[in-house]
Amino acid sequence: MSPNPATPLLDTVDTPHDLRKLAPAQLRQLADELRAEMIAAVGQTGGHLGSGLGVVELTVALHYVFNTPDDRLVWDVGHQAYPHKIITGRRDRIRTLRQGGGLSGFTKRSESEYDPFGTAHSSTSISAALGFAIANKLAGTPGKGIAVIGDGAMSAGMAYEAMNNAEAAGNRLIVILNDNDMSIAPPVGGLSAYLARLVSSRPFLELRELARRLSRKLPEPLHRAAKKTDEFARGMAMGGTLFEELGFYYVGPIDGHNLDQLIPVLENVRDAAEGPCLIHVVTQKGKGYVPAEQAADKYHGVQKFDVVTGQQVKAAATAPAYQNVFGETLAKLADTDPTICAITAAMPSGTGVDKFAKAHPDRSFDVGIAEQHAVTFAAGLAAQGMRPFCAIYSTFLQRAFDQVVHDVAIQNLPVRFAIDRAGLVGADGATHAGSFDITYLATLPNLVVMAAADEAELVHMTYTAACHDSGPIAFRYPRGNGVGVPLPEVPQQLEIGKGRIVREGTKVALLSLGTRLAEALKAADALEAKGLSTTVADLRFAKPLDTDLIRRLMTTHDVVVTVEEGSIGGLGAHVLTMASDEGLTDAGLKIRTLRLPDVFQDHDSPDKQYDAAGLNAPQIVECVLKALRHNSAGVEEARA
Amino acid sequence: MSPNPATPLLDTVDTPHDLRKLAPAQLRQLADELRAEMIAAVGQTGGHLGSGLGVVELTVALHYVFNTPDDRLVWDVGHQAYPHKIITGRRDRIRTLRQGGGLSGFTKRSESEYDPFGTAHSSTSISAALGFAIANKLAGTPGKGIAVIGDGAMSAGMAYEAMNNAEAAGNRLIVILNDNDMSIAPPVGGLSAYLARLVSSRPFLELRELARRLSRKLPEPLHRAAKKTDEFARGMAMGGTLFEELGFYYVGPIDGHNLDQLIPVLENVRDAAEGPCLIHVVTQKGKGYVPAEQAADKYHGVQKFDVVTGQQVKAAATAPAYQNVFGETLAKLADTDPTICAITAAMPSGTGVDKFAKAHPDRSFDVGIAEQHAVTFAAGLAAQGMRPFCAIYSTFLQRAFDQVVHDVAIQNLPVRFAIDRAGLVGADGATHAGSFDITYLATLPNLVVMAAADEAELVHMTYTAACHDSGPIAFRYPRGNGVGVPLPEVPQQLEIGKGRIVREGTKVALLSLGTRLAEALKAADALEAKGLSTTVADLRFAKPLDTDLIRRLMTTHDVVVTVEEGSIGGLGAHVLTMASDEGLTDAGLKIRTLRLPDVFQDHDSPDKQYDAAGLNAPQIVECVLKALRHNSAGVEEARA
Repeated sequence: MSPNPATPLLDTVDTPHDLRKLAPAQLRQLADELRAEMIAAVGQTGGHLGSGLGVVELTVALHYVFNTPDDRLVWDVGHQAYPHKIITGRRDRIRTLRQGGGLSGFTKRSESEYDPFGTAHSSTSISAALGFAIANKLAGTPGKGIAVIGDGAMSAGMAYEAMNNAEAAGNRLIVILNDNDMSIAPPVGGLSAYLARLVSSRPFLELRELARRLSRKLPEPLHRAAKKTDEFARGMAMGGTLFEELGFYYVGPIDGHNLDQLIPVLENVRDAAEGPCLIHVVTQKGKGYVPAEQAADKYHGVQKFDVVTGQQVKAAATAPAYQNVFGETLAKLADTDPTICAITAAMPSGTGVDKFAKAHPDRSFDVGIAEQHAVTFAAGLAAQGMRPFCAIYSTFLQRAFDQVVHDVAIQNLPVRFAIDRAGLVGADGATHAGSFDITYLATLPNLVVMAAADEAELVHMTYTAACHDSGPIAFRYPRGNGVGVPLPEVPQQLEIGKGRIVREGTKVALLSLGTRLAEALKAADALEAKGLSTTVADLRFAKPLDTDLIRRLMTTHDVVVTVEEGSIGGLGAHVLTMASDEGLTDAGLKIRTLRLPDVFQDHDSPDKQYDAAGLNAPQIVECVLKALRHNSAGVEEARA
Repeated sequence: MSPNPATPLLDTVDTPHDLRKLAPAQLRQLADELRAEMIAAVGQTGGHLGSGLGVVELTVALHYVFNTPDDRLVWDVGHQAYPHKIITGRRDRIRTLRQGGGLSGFTKRSESEYDPFGTAHSSTSISAALGFAIANKLAGTPGKGIAVIGDGAMSAGMAYEAMNNAEAAGNRLIVILNDNDMSIAPPVGGLSAYLARLVSSRPFLELRELARRLSRKLPEPLHRAAKKTDEFARGMAMGGTLFEELGFYYVGPIDGHNLDQLIPVLENVRDAAEGPCLIHVVTQKGKGYVPAEQAADKYHGVQKFDVVTGQQVKAAATAPAYQNVFGETLAKLADTDPTICAITAAMPSGTGVDKFAKAHPDRSFDVGIAEQHAVTFAAGLAAQGMRPFCAIYSTFLQRAFDQVVHDVAIQNLPVRFAIDRAGLVGADGATHAGSFDITYLATLPNLVVMAAADEAELVHMTYTAACHDSGPIAFRYPRGNGVGVPLPEVPQQLEIGKGRIVREGTKVALLSLGTRLAEALKAADALEAKGLSTTVADLRFAKPLDTDLIRRLMTTHDVVVTVEEGSIGGLGAHVLTMASDEGLTDAGLKIRTLRLPDVFQDHDSPDKQYDAAGLNAPQIVECVLKALRHNSAGVEEARA
């Protein structure tokens, strides 16, 4: 679809070692070729585009000036690292990005020595870079820790925690604040407003000014005097930037697309900085590709597209995305319930909260990348009588686990957790897979944990959550589109802790939780074809369990198999625990639990991931047959 | 032991309504009586003393000026809230603090309408106060959200996340920064240094200055001009404080023990602030009680003590505390291994890292209250070849769950987690109980999860963790002192995933993980006395399980019972899952899992907590006997 661009200079650069042989005057051309190559590659693979386009010059400059891989370069989030991958020995695989067996869409240690730290969740880079810096300091080896972090990622608490600890690293730590005034959505919060003021109030840095600031370059007596004056000024006037107040030397703002400015500034910081340095670089997301520059989301994440027109190849959706079903349902419920609020942590469109915000802007809160705050803020709202819905991806809710325990569950406050991206997520891979939420939520007292089997169930569960004022409640649903069932006109309030029989049989019972229900039903068809009458239950609740239903199925069927898209410790574990608590295993119980495997699964197409996980219909069938073959002596009998 | 002081004025104050009837001139006497009463009470109960002493005047002033409980006052951490409890209707129960059935040592919603939000883990107060403020704003009801937060707690990321979102609350949000230059240990990090510079460079605030800043009080034209100038100054010079840069009006510093300054400043902020306000109050931990003022830890947490002498009643320890066994073992290992590092998040003495720091100061890192950073920093160290030990309490590690998943487990980096306070914790209650770590860690691929049965085992596990370079490893151990076994001269490297038989029998098998081993052994004695030959295994590993050992015991014993000090989803769930995976339940398996109950247990003496949890020897015995009575028809037979 997209012809590969001519890249004569880039063709000579396989690694940063080659790059460093170029003359400074050649870098502009290299950056242009790198940008064209990246656009062509992502046109073929889809993926994150806008962020990478914004850091092409920065990528070139960093590898040119610093001694990577010994200087450890950590790209926060990592979705902007495609140009980095191209010039660190991975150009030959760049068109496999996010494909099964191909390059990851984030940085990954196993891919390259130039990826010293894997990223994907935001705001980890400063902590990691500090680890590298301190380890080198202790070992007495050279090597800096360099974190490249966006302004959006700076709103997360852990970035601040790391900055607060920077001083110990001395000049081995360099933080590049990549300020494009945008993360995935427009930025929010005090820090963002502050950065905008900083940029608008200060001219781009002149080198003379930089030299003054990095004062070691001055002759020693002058240097000492300058340093003293500087400290005095800081102590008295308190007029430094927020970053200076946390112990950094602040350098900036810098034009992040101007190599003639970037290179000398980075060199200067590399050679002259006395302590940890923060370089404030201003970039433009989507830079250099007109369709991206003009799009509201700057082509943050794209499908395959035509490079010339920018037109993305989008498959026609057969059913609405789960996130939108949630957002629209909640918006409708809020029309008649003034206490419903929605909270997102920098993911308004990803969570469907944008639909809610459109209808109810005053009750919609985008708190930035700040899941911890999101949850406790919701707890505060709930304690004052509101009905808050915290819409957070399963993996990102891990960031707020303690807040779920301490501020919500212990106090039994009715916060509603809408957990998107539950289960496997395809191209985003292991870092974004929502594998653990059933386990980490269902272990908590007071929590109610539901999983939607399809988009109609999601409507019911959203409403059920709105009605549930007696304590916290969570409902999970996957990435992607629903299965195409009609959406209910009137949402139904589900009875807490009650499942439903979807199909009644006599010999095999499949206990499904969540969207694997469709595969369970397919498996039931296949089992029936083999003469095995099969019951399929949609348990709906991982907690509290429908013990009546489960007990009845266990005592009337030959084999019971649980099916869930979650790791060990979740539904299967709770069902087994109930069975052993009640002594149902005492006299023999053929029970198996299908769950996600005990590995972090790499990115791949969803169907292949489910196959690898053993959660497709054929594997459910095989599990049942194998259990039936297993005789009472505990030995598997010959295949029937 | 400590006579109750005469408190004629305090005797007239049951609630803040009574307080507000007093004349300002009476408040000094009230504060003095309140301080005396608190010292007397804590002398009888033990508990947190220093923090409460530091906020006596602040407590009086806040309730005097603000309309509590409608104005929602949230005490961060809550251990400084004893004076608050005394003047909010709980004086009659103040001598039950931290006793079974008595008042909690933290704020608690179920105790009083004056505790609108329960606290205990640090740094949640601003988020919660923001929730109250916004809910009131949306409902159009009066009422502010007021957070009182220490300088130490300000180092946590979630406080920063909340500050970053403050602007939406307008003047309904007030943050009182209680700066005593001390949390539990001396403060660390850039923010702390910054606050010290702030305090030393600015005189205590004069009221005239405050009036200027809270400019609405000026006549309208003047006000508008002043506001414009102010904004202009902020935009150009960027000379505000860190808090102003995040969108707060900064007011301070203020002498937190001077009621003549506190009261008018609070009144002024209450009436005149235009946006969210941060009041920087300087206090002295332990203020007004000489033994506390003179102690290095300012009597942060104390046993019962004699008020006159300050002498604490400490029971003679029969065995070393687990934390010290860990710290000393690690320090010794580090003598010959230069790669070992220790990291604590503001708990050097609580985790025993202080012992390590004494021997190896350059490899010891106190990162402040910053668990997220602690874990990812450790991951960075590990990625650069160090052997980092992250020593964090079980509940506080919840703060860093995503970092354990994303930065450590997915990358399979050999970070060592020393998990203290695992299991029930007595007087600290539900918020500090380490109930969930087995569940939330053992569900993760790549993790190795151990639990020490006694202090000798802890020595072995510390060494085993040091030797384990192939991935992450965690070992948990409880609060308090060991059981008194001799400590090994030479630590032993345990084989990963292998348990040990402690006592061999034939009929009943008890599979213990952790320090309930002692109770399991007592239970075995009782069972033997009833003619039931009992095996006791110490599994040592929740992950990977010793499947050989477990399988053997399951196939050779009549009843198998797992015993762990953790919630559902942990050891018992993993053992049951293994049994069902292998078909061991098919032909009948009498298996039971003893674990923590599905409730948040209130504070009490440890032994009573274990009784309530059903984890003492008599309950283990009863579980076995009940399982044996349970016949093959699934019905419990008559008691033998």
